[in-house]
Amino acid sequence: MNFGILKTQGFARLGKLYTDHGIVETPCFIPDGTLGVVKTLSVEDLHSIDMDMILGNTYHLMVKPGIEILEKAGGLHKFMNWDKPILTDSGGFQVFSLSKIRKMTEEGAVFRNHLNGDKILLTPEKSIQMQKVIGSDIAMVLDECVAAEKNYKYFKRSVDLTLRWAERSKKEFERLQTITGKKQQLFGIVQGGSFEDLRRYSLEGLIKIGFDGYAIGGVSVGEGRDDKYKVMRVLADLLPVDKPRYLMGLGMPEEIIEGVKNGVDIFDCVIPTRNARHGHLFTNFKMESLDKYSYDVVRIRNAKYKTDFTPLDENCSCYTCKTYTKAYLHHLLNVNEILGMRLMSLHNLKFYLDLMKKIRRVIDSGRKD
Amino acid sequence: MNFGILKTQGFARLGKLYTDHGIVETPCFIPDGTLGVVKTLSVEDLHSIDMDMILGNTYHLMVKPGIEILEKAGGLHKFMNWDKPILTDSGGFQVFSLSKIRKMTEEGAVFRNHLNGDKILLTPEKSIQMQKVIGSDIAMVLDECVAAEKNYKYFKRSVDLTLRWAERSKKEFERLQTITGKKQQLFGIVQGGSFEDLRRYSLEGLIKIGFDGYAIGGVSVGEGRDDKYKVMRVLADLLPVDKPRYLMGLGMPEEIIEGVKNGVDIFDCVIPTRNARHGHLFTNFKMESLDKYSYDVVRIRNAKYKTDFTPLDENCSCYTCKTYTKAYLHHLLNVNEILGMRLMSLHNLKFYLDLMKKIRRVIDSGRKD
Repeated sequence: MNFGILKTQGFARLGKLYTDHGIVETPCFIPDGTLGVVKTLSVEDLHSIDMDMILGNTYHLMVKPGIEILEKAGGLHKFMNWDKPILTDSGGFQVFSLSKIRKMTEEGAVFRNHLNGDKILLTPEKSIQMQKVIGSDIAMVLDECVAAEKNYKYFKRSVDLTLRWAERSKKEFERLQTITGKKQQLFGIVQGGSFEDLRRYSLEGLIKIGFDGYAIGGVSVGEGRDDKYKVMRVLADLLPVDKPRYLMGLGMPEEIIEGVKNGVDIFDCVIPTRNARHGHLFTNFKMESLDKYSYDVVRIRNAKYKTDFTPLDENCSCYTCKTYTKAYLHHLLNVNEILGMRLMSLHNLKFYLDLMKKIRRVIDSGRKD
Repeated sequence: MNFGILKTQGFARLGKLYTDHGIVETPCFIPDGTLGVVKTLSVEDLHSIDMDMILGNTYHLMVKPGIEILEKAGGLHKFMNWDKPILTDSGGFQVFSLSKIRKMTEEGAVFRNHLNGDKILLTPEKSIQMQKVIGSDIAMVLDECVAAEKNYKYFKRSVDLTLRWAERSKKEFERLQTITGKKQQLFGIVQGGSFEDLRRYSLEGLIKIGFDGYAIGGVSVGEGRDDKYKVMRVLADLLPVDKPRYLMGLGMPEEIIEGVKNGVDIFDCVIPTRNARHGHLFTNFKMESLDKYSYDVVRIRNAKYKTDFTPLDENCSCYTCKTYTKAYLHHLLNVNEILGMRLMSLHNLKFYLDLMKKIRRVIDSGRKD
């Protein structure tokens, strides 16, 4: 049992995800710790906002520092001194997003290292092996990410390939699970683009293989918001109720809330940290229900903040809001001082964690917040 | 009384510097907070290593955020939320180091803003006025920084000009001291290059005017180490014993210790923070006496640190050393993650603070440390 549901509201679920490195309350948001670091932040920073879980990118970690180094370090937890849960992706998304030249074969994904051009063959087995070395609490199967504009035939063939890879992933995962004795979870990834029947088909195939959780893939790669929401609605009713559900790579607060309404438990996205580094800050979240909420966006570069000596968000308890003014953040960004990027990343992540907390409260009680 | 001496050892002095924002034990080191931030570090970071005092650059602050913003903020302490002492320079050094086109007139320094090319006239009065707005605890008089290769005649004329500016600075300082009622200290700056008689002449002129402390200027602008040390030795015997002495812009640990041996109380330098950002790290300081000490330098980019899973400095209590390994720091620098620059800046500053603490202990007791 890696997941328990405490309460529901429509499809929305209040739950607990159990991992080897601790329990995570869901729905939850996890930030991207691409290269063994959530950009600009120390583990102390992450603890200061009660961050529960982070994401590591298998592909990036394979390139730098390299799997051998992580193996010698005793895994990513030790390497970066993070003792809470880690979820890793399989590398499939980076094959799609970073490598211009790539080829999917039965064996695996053939592509070029985005830094030095070396040819790499990433197989389902290799991805699982690397995630074992990384030692993530939750690993993902290797899948093919497909651009939204591809046709039905391409998607069908791709879903079939991804299902065969999923089966191989599971097999390799179980083989290594026995050998290493470490408790790790493996999630399958539902693909199929915006074709409802392919999504069903993909999910049914994955359920037959059997996974600890199910991810919805391919929603951050070019589909319109309507298509994303349609996919979520279709799957809301089909995904196994007793397993955690992970929507990969989304998104904006409204996308997350739409995901929650469709039964999603886990979200990850680069938006809070990436936007923060550009001075695009989320503030003032208010929520009455899953259908009634609001928030503001502060673009801190705006000249009007030059002499605004108030905190970024009066109601936020992050270090940035407790310590500094908008005028100071504006100044730091204006003179390219990297402290600014850190302070703003910290705030945006705290905003996302507070957002998730409010969502959980609303599911729990239905009362105003 | 802004300064008290507790103990001496040769010319070396163990003392206390009293300011409006707290007492600083001397000899002390203060890092550069050029643009209202000690590069990469929050005030919480600075407090975590017990930083006592920081330096603000009047010229840089005048350009960005600008004096009007600092005035509206209520001074630099409030702007950056730093409640311990601040020392500001006068802007004279930046006129020298940043502006290719500059002219010294009786009225002041005429030069171009290094960012937008605007012509600026910086007078002694204007520098004092700005430092009043900044609200530093210790302000400096405007001086002319002279390149070491200039001849005697140039230096003589420059010392005379700097003395006349010092007199005007003092006058403006006293006028504003009465008006604002804020307690600020004003230091004079001894110039004269490597010409001993000019250094004497400069100091005598300053003493006649009378200041709260005396700085040794021009030692970081091109003189060889022998010349610097000669200047220190000459002045050691001449500077007023009961006033704090500040060696501007130096330096490496051995330069600081040489300064201490020649009676200097206050040091500032960009070396610990700038070197940190390039992965040049100070470790393992040991001191038996002011003449017997050692330290190591770790160049963390070196490939041998890839798999070095030990702390940077076993004996250091900074967050970096307590939390991360050399392998992790190597990785962060290798992938240009800015967290690395912060962690290494924190460590190098802690090294300098520990260095000063050990120096103070040695002066205090003469015992091994």
